[in-house]
Order: sequence, then C-alpha cells, then structure tokens
Amino acid sequence: MPRIQRFPIHLRFGDEDSYGHVNNVRFLQYLEDARVQFMHLPLSEAAHGDAKASDTLLETIGPDHFTLVARHEIEYSAPLNYRPSPLEISIWVTGVGGSSFDLGYQIAEPDGSTSYALAASTMIQVNRTTGRPTKLNGAQRYALEHWRADPVAFRRRQNG
Amino acid sequence: MPRIQRFPIHLRFGDEDSYGHVNNVRFLQYLEDARVQFMHLPLSEAAHGDAKASDTLLETIGPDHFTLVARHEIEYSAPLNYRPSPLEISIWVTGVGGSSFDLGYQIAEPDGSTSYALAASTMIQVNRTTGRPTKLNGAQRYALEHWRADPVAFRRRQNG
Amino acid sequence: MPRIQRFPIHLRFGDEDSYGHVNNVRFLQYLEDARVQFMHLPLSEAAHGDAKASDTLLETIGPDHFTLVARHEIEYSAPLNYRPSPLEISIWVTGVGGSSFDLGYQIAEPDGSTSYALAASTMIQVNRTTGRPTKLNGAQRYALEHWRADPVAFRRRQNG
Amino acid sequence: MPRIQRFPIHLRFGDEDSYGHVNNVRFLQYLEDARVQFMHLPLSEAAHGDAKASDTLLETIGPDHFTLVARHEIEYSAPLNYRPSPLEISIWVTGVGGSSFDLGYQIAEPDGSTSYALAASTMIQVNRTTGRPTKLNGAQRYALEHWRADPVAFRRRQNG
Repeated sequence: MPRIQRFPIHLRFGDEDSYGHVNNVRFLQYLEDARVQFMHLPLSEAAHGDAKASDTLLETIGPDHFTLVARHEIEYSAPLNYRPSPLEISIWVTGVGGSSFDLGYQIAEPDGSTSYALAASTMIQVNRTTGRPTKLNGAQRYALEHWRADPVAFRRRQNG
Repeated sequence: MPRIQRFPIHLRFGDEDSYGHVNNVRFLQYLEDARVQFMHLPLSEAAHGDAKASDTLLETIGPDHFTLVARHEIEYSAPLNYRPSPLEISIWVTGVGGSSFDLGYQIAEPDGSTSYALAASTMIQVNRTTGRPTKLNGAQRYALEHWRADPVAFRRRQNG
Repeated sequence: MPRIQRFPIHLRFGDEDSYGHVNNVRFLQYLEDARVQFMHLPLSEAAHGDAKASDTLLETIGPDHFTLVARHEIEYSAPLNYRPSPLEISIWVTGVGGSSFDLGYQIAEPDGSTSYALAASTMIQVNRTTGRPTKLNGAQRYALEHWRADPVAFRRRQNG
Repeated sequence: MPRIQRFPIHLRFGDEDSYGHVNNVRFLQYLEDARVQFMHLPLSEAAHGDAKASDTLLETIGPDHFTLVARHEIEYSAPLNYRPSPLEISIWVTGVGGSSFDLGYQIAEPDGSTSYALAASTMIQVNRTTGRPTKLNGAQRYALEHWRADPVAFRRRQNG
C-alpha cells in the first residue's frame, strides 16, 4: 500500500466565485473530503495489534473519541477553473505526536502537469465527553507511521 | 483610525456540519468577508499621494490589477456553534512586501471572552491581463503600513 | 405581534457565482436562516394551552420530534449583488395541515423598493425515532394559525 | 440519444448539516451541476439548422445571451446521507416557451432503488446587455424539443 493516497476531486460549478476562478475557501473543502476518505481507508498492511486489516483509521479511534482540525496551512500556486473532469488530491502523514498527527496534501492535475495547492493540517484526537486531547493508541500510531512521508514542501512562509 | 479593524460575522445555520459545530472550512469564508470589507474601507487618514480620503484600498489597486490569496494559515482554539448574534472578526496588516502584503485575523466573541481562531493570509497583487505580480504603488504601501500591527501570535507551528 | 416576521439577511462575498450575481441556490439558504429564526421566536401572545409566552415554536415541537422540509418553491424576480448592508426576508404561515404546515417568504430590499424572490416551503413534523409524520399538537396549531397570512402571490407556475 | 440525460452526483462531507443528513439547500446545487453538464452536451442528432452535431446547447445560445433561473420547485422524498459513491441525477426538458424552457430532474440511487427528490426549473434566456428576455432560436427549440419528456410527477402541491 503506497504511503501517499490519491483521491479524485469532483468540482462543482458553484465552486467558482465572481472572479471566475475556484474560490480559495473551496480548496479547504477538498482537503476535508480527502481526509474523510483517508479516515475510511481499510488499514490493510498498516493494521497492527488489535486492529484488523479491514478496520479503518476511523475505527481505530473508536466511538469515545474524535479528531478535530487544530490548524491548516495552504499555499496556492495556480488559478483553477470549473470543469467536469476530476482533479486529484494526494494525502499523506507528515508527523505523529502524542495526541495529534499532521497531514500533508497536494491538489493537482491527475497527470501531474499542474499543482494548484499544497496544504498541511494538524489533527487532534479528543475525548467526545470531555473535549480534552487523548493519546493516540498503538494501532493508530502504527497505521499513521505506515503512511508517513515527506514534510510538505511549502515555498514561502509568512513570519506570523 | 485604529490599526486593527473589526467587523461583525453573522453565522448561518448551514455553517454547522454533521459534528454539530461550525465547520472548519467556514472560518475561511469569514476571513474572506473581513478582507472584502477591509478592501472597501475609506482610506481616511491613511490616504497619501494621489489617493483621496474617500478612496478605498480596493480603489488604490485600480482596474488593471487585483489581489489573489497566495496562502492562508489558521489555528482553531475553541469549538463554535451557530447562534443568531454575531461574532467579531479583527483584521490588520502584518507585513508589506514588494507586490504582496500579509494580513492577520482573530475570530472572537465581541466581548473578547473567547477566541475561536487566529489566522494569517498573504495577498499578492497581480496584473489582470498577464496574471503576473505587480509592485504595490505608493498609496497602497502608505495605507497598508498605516494599518500595520503585530504579527499573529500563533501557538503552534507544524514543521511543514 | 405581527403575522409576518421580518429578519435581516447578511450576504457574503461567496454568495456570488461566476456570473457575478448571488447564486440562485444561495437564496434557499436565506430561507433556511429565516426559518431557523422563526422557529426560535418566543410565542408571546401566540402561546396557548401548555405553552408559555417565553416558549419558542421549536420548543412546542419537543425533543421527540423535528420538522423536515418536504418541498420548496421559489420564484426569482431580480438579480442580486453582494453588498455589505443586509437584505430583509419576510416569513409567514400560509397553511396548517395535520402533521405539516406551509410557509411563505419574500426576499426584498428593507425599504420595499425591490423584491428579489418569493418562496414557499412545506414542513412536515416527524418522529425522531420512527421518521414517520406525527400530528401537530394544539399549542403548535394555535401558534401557526396566529402567524397565518395570505398565500404567496407567485406570478407563474410550471405545469410540472 | 435518450431524451433523459443522467449524470453522477458526487456528495461532499460538508453537504450534511447538523441534523446529520444532506441539507435540503444542497440538493439545489446538484440540480445546478446537472444543468451545467446538460448545457455542455454535444447536440448530436439534436442538431438542426445552423447547429453542428458537436455544438453544445450552451453554444446555440451564443455569447450575447445567457439563461437565468426564473423558478425552482423541489419535492424531497427520502433523507440522504454522505457516502463516497455517487448518486445519479436525471434531467430532461418538460416544456419549451417563447424565451424560456422548463427542466425536470430526479435525484436517485443509480440502481433506481430510492428516489430522493423530484424537481423542476424554469430557465429564461436573456440578453446579456439589456437583461431582457429574448426568443429562443430555431436550433435551440429543435434541441430542447428533442430532449422533451414527461412532466415531473410531483406528489403534492401547495396552494401558494
């Protein structure tokens, strides 16, 4: 199973704003859809300990916890227009912390000819009742490390 | 005129997702609305050179250029729920480059009791015909520097 | 208390699509926000039976039931553009059935100079567990009849 | 070429609202995406007069005119939840007027097992400069009549 997962992104006419390009906010929704599909992937050979190969990353979290977005960072590199054919989003793990993990993304043409955006998110696992961060368990850490690849190669960084 | 501008944010029922909180993507739309209002502010005492006090930042850009979002960074600090009363978003300038400028934002309760998110954006001025970056003019630089305040005090930063 | 309730609608820059007007889909979100505010109105003199004047229409429904949109009809009469100042939406009851009720809406300039859309919705009350329609109770019927006004004066109707 | 065109609808996680179902407003965006794809269909054997088989319905309109939504009607018949696999939307013509035409839609499981919604829209062709309705031309009328099928079988109608 590759470290980097790839999913199609189907644009909608309404993703464009009055400037005639896909709105910058909409890209964050594409990240969300990639995350949701990533969380629903069967672990396969990333399964470890109590986790079964047919389990998903979401199932390793269990019903008592859920993951929250703690931060996003996104860099836009080319204007994008609506079209019926899908784009491709790549998603991978860039870091695993005590109760959090980091994801990297690239939104690009399926043939790799154009990259529209690079992005990164930090996800925190919290207890559903208390809302407080909780430790990732062994199965989660194993799976996340399995999908770990390079940090996101952002071109520029703002000084806060 | 204060360096930090404040605008109300009116939530919509549809801003909540199936987790029962305002969706993280929606916060980026709040940033957009603050930016749009910021660009439509009369320059007042930030006017300089050819610019009149009644001109807006948008008008200093002129019809041949427009500003694009080059990057966003956002840090979420508290869950937010739909309610009829508005939130408050603060927006200010954190940096002025050759053909770009940086904005900082805070989304918070109007009474300052809770901060929901801190964010930063880099905006690039481009030529409408060529799509290439163009230099900020003197009136723009003067106005942007007038609204310049502290960098955004993000709590954590991912290593790419 | 007037039969017709009025609420402000705050537009967002992102409500416009690439044709440069507020997208037709977005109007339905304005209806939703008006409905949500309508359901949260204190009953005041529309209170009857077990209902208190401070209760809302939502509270007369109780935790075991909720209301679903069964149908919408909307007629657009003028193009609308983003602007910072709010529009006004009027909402009223046009019919009360066994387990359903009908709402009428008008989206217009606050000064009444332009009407952008007329709309109507049928809401059905269903049991949260079974998902099946359930009878409106006496307090609900009394309140809904209290807010009842004229049918929506649509100009044209398609023959299905 | 069949009279009824069918397109996939790809749901997004963010289409669900805090009730945990796809929000009623979002269905209207599905109609929009079906319309956009319908307008981009090559005419094929629906081509007539000056129109070529490779032309689209959009191209028969020409650059001086565009089509506006004048009204929508939608009836919801089953709750819908987010899932990665696409739904299917059917779209067809239900009427052709002087400067307008009517569309019918059904949103359903691809295997036809469940219908989630029926809908109808009236589209008006207007002049881009004056904003006034303009007559459909011969090629448009021929193509629209070619795709004409039964009226939408709505189950209930509100009395305004």
